[in-house]
Amino acid sequence: MNSHMTPEEFRRHGYAAVDWIADYMTNVADRPVVSEAAPGDVRAALPPHPPEKGEPFENLLSDLDDIILPGITHWQHPGFFGFFPANASGPAILGDLLTGGLNVVGMLWWASPAATELEEHVMDWMADLLDLPERFRSGGPGGGVIQDTASSAVLVVLLAALNRATGGRARAEGVSGRFAVYGSDQAHSALEKNVRVAGLGESAMRLVRTDPATLAMDPEHLRELIEADVRDGVLPVMVMATVGSTSTTAVDPVPRIGALCREFGIWLHIDAAFAGVAAVCPEFRWIHEGVSEFADSYCTNPHKWMLTTVGSSTLWVADRGAVIEALSILPAFLRNRATESGQVVDYRDWQIPLGRTFRALKLWAVLRWYGAEGVRAHVRHHVALAQEFALWVTDDERFELVAPHPLSLVCFRMRGADSRTERLLELLNADGRIFVSQTRVNGHLAIRFAIGATTIDTEHVATAWQVIRDLADRAGTCEMERT
Amino acid sequence: MNSHMTPEEFRRHGYAAVDWIADYMTNVADRPVVSEAAPGDVRAALPPHPPEKGEPFENLLSDLDDIILPGITHWQHPGFFGFFPANASGPAILGDLLTGGLNVVGMLWWASPAATELEEHVMDWMADLLDLPERFRSGGPGGGVIQDTASSAVLVVLLAALNRATGGRARAEGVSGRFAVYGSDQAHSALEKNVRVAGLGESAMRLVRTDPATLAMDPEHLRELIEADVRDGVLPVMVMATVGSTSTTAVDPVPRIGALCREFGIWLHIDAAFAGVAAVCPEFRWIHEGVSEFADSYCTNPHKWMLTTVGSSTLWVADRGAVIEALSILPAFLRNRATESGQVVDYRDWQIPLGRTFRALKLWAVLRWYGAEGVRAHVRHHVALAQEFALWVTDDERFELVAPHPLSLVCFRMRGADSRTERLLELLNADGRIFVSQTRVNGHLAIRFAIGATTIDTEHVATAWQVIRDLADRAGTCEMERT
Repeated sequence: MNSHMTPEEFRRHGYAAVDWIADYMTNVADRPVVSEAAPGDVRAALPPHPPEKGEPFENLLSDLDDIILPGITHWQHPGFFGFFPANASGPAILGDLLTGGLNVVGMLWWASPAATELEEHVMDWMADLLDLPERFRSGGPGGGVIQDTASSAVLVVLLAALNRATGGRARAEGVSGRFAVYGSDQAHSALEKNVRVAGLGESAMRLVRTDPATLAMDPEHLRELIEADVRDGVLPVMVMATVGSTSTTAVDPVPRIGALCREFGIWLHIDAAFAGVAAVCPEFRWIHEGVSEFADSYCTNPHKWMLTTVGSSTLWVADRGAVIEALSILPAFLRNRATESGQVVDYRDWQIPLGRTFRALKLWAVLRWYGAEGVRAHVRHHVALAQEFALWVTDDERFELVAPHPLSLVCFRMRGADSRTERLLELLNADGRIFVSQTRVNGHLAIRFAIGATTIDTEHVATAWQVIRDLADRAGTCEMERT
Repeated sequence: MNSHMTPEEFRRHGYAAVDWIADYMTNVADRPVVSEAAPGDVRAALPPHPPEKGEPFENLLSDLDDIILPGITHWQHPGFFGFFPANASGPAILGDLLTGGLNVVGMLWWASPAATELEEHVMDWMADLLDLPERFRSGGPGGGVIQDTASSAVLVVLLAALNRATGGRARAEGVSGRFAVYGSDQAHSALEKNVRVAGLGESAMRLVRTDPATLAMDPEHLRELIEADVRDGVLPVMVMATVGSTSTTAVDPVPRIGALCREFGIWLHIDAAFAGVAAVCPEFRWIHEGVSEFADSYCTNPHKWMLTTVGSSTLWVADRGAVIEALSILPAFLRNRATESGQVVDYRDWQIPLGRTFRALKLWAVLRWYGAEGVRAHVRHHVALAQEFALWVTDDERFELVAPHPLSLVCFRMRGADSRTERLLELLNADGRIFVSQTRVNGHLAIRFAIGATTIDTEHVATAWQVIRDLADRAGTCEMERT
């Protein structure tokens, strides 16, 4: 029987695990980026019942190689251009390790003061880096908190907005009545999901039209929808403006949206989950136009484009009291002097669950290792690669860009019927050398080419473009054969 | 400027981080268990702005020692008897490391098949270990999923229950109407919080009385409340029965509660967040009486008592369709063949957020390292220590137990006025050698002594008891001085 892993055993197995990751980093580019596993393949290789006796740690590592890796689509692969990136980095991974090693629960300041204070501090640092307004910093009435995902951030602010809009009635009596929440037809599906979670129902969701050229929210349509709701006795609760939409990184016109929110007294949340990080560079800070003036809350994910492993979504609110009022609860077993003194932040009241890890540690590790200039260089590199890629697409007459590409995502399609692009996507998926995802833009199928892997360089993008061109030749041939 | 950490740099810094944790494991018992930091101390030691240039990784480790550790209350310390444990273990910590190293997003089967399949598989293993019913396993209409916390698990099943109870109306139109959710007055505050989150409002929460001796839910009172609600046109949505309450590890009478739920068609969720893990041992499996027959859903947290670091809360449901119906959403950018084939599980539809880590990896690491017999030995050891401690309390006439202590938590107080116990708690907190938390039982203040640190042994419990006795002498003296 294995007893607890002793510190010396931990040291030995820890080195082996570190080696395993270092080797993975070294070799990931040689693997097929997309898993070739069919449904059930991974499970078929696992024993049906848990082991009765403990096993050597080496077994785990060898099963990682033999059973798990064939079932992994490698998000850290330089051929991974799908979804948005989840780019990891050495300091973030070691941040995960250290977080697990301390394994404190940061639900209350009292439960480990450093977990809370480092988070407040790093959130102020991030506000510095992104040039966010003073009212989001910890010194004033607002503040920052790390959520697990931008979806959770949306839920938190939606509940705060709802409670504020109803003067506390939502918390006390529930959401009886008619409410409306607004986001563009390009907004992340997390908005609609959380409108349901919060008890408002799908019928409360208002999809605001977007401009077909920019794919950004049409503020005139937003005004029409709000006015119609007000006329009908429906209470507008929140507008979510998107800075960098999931589909195409479209940027909503926040100044005009913000002015409307102010006019009607509506909470304005900015979902910059992917793109917000770009604001570390002054030349991309235009994406935040209007945020300083108008936003009640703002979210971006270091775990997408800022080299931090998953579980790092940074949310700021201008009025932390609104969040706490919606979410606080203090059972007897959590009572303590620090909380009662009012001198400390208890992050359990800034999120849905009670428990939480020492979330700031890995973000701190990333910021220390890279420094502001390292993060800026990272973002600039990806944007430059994407701009170059977009030129190549433009130069090939078989393809067309379908949306603006101000940052590191390029969306394009094959000219002509959607069936061509569909065929190309099938060929790309079957080929496995690169991974792309898809979307629909103005009714047409399009390929999303998202540049974001940590170690990506020109050669990888060039190779990807060659793969796409080669398979486009085949797609064209098949298309001709079909017609 | 630091560039990306190379694999060789990662290897070197990774070893150093592993060494740091091994040393922490070795020395944690020599530190004061409770942080002595005052509000603001940690922040005062940090630079006001983020670094412009990257720093050596060594700086991070030395700041961990100098700035962070003084602000840590050590949950891994053998003198930590507060809250419930969050006992870490070597394999779990290395699981965190490996999870960060792969850094895949397990939102869809397609996004990394192994992340989903290992989770389905390990959840079946856990169902084996806990002797949970067949209908919770992946082969039938139900299944298991790992949530970040038991709070999130409650929200997920509450939304499923609400949607089922309203025939889909809640999802489509929101929660307009009158609803009721039931839990005992000892149920975790997550229930009340999530009743609010789901838009039902505090007024929908029904606190069922508990028996003063057992602190378990009184099913007669539950029946009265349900019948009154039905009479008044209020729709009963969910009953949450607690197996191992946060305050005292009280166990609700699930068979009688379950029969009522069946009679009235109400979703029964079992919150066994802390205690459920004890069911790995046949002799403690009585805590699950009624679960097999009646539960619609069941949750326990390996990250409390089963050696897994935070972020591992295992939830099973008997009808996964109900969960998916409440939570699914499929935007264009997530469309894929595997999902459309219906052959795979997409865990994004089993949780509130979209994103998620490779959650099963660390739980798999724990189960492989310890095996079933290792986990059982761990639980038995803690229960035996607690039973011995309870005897010592009973033998000291100054103290009294305030609740049954079937598992590893012992709740006790000083006889006489609450001010004595209050004073003892103050002295214990100021002393810092051990950490305990508090609760109220039948109106009286009580000390919660939760045994659960990974490396705890008889000597630590004996030392803690000596500390308590010594300080009780002083508390008694102070009490006399006051009167």
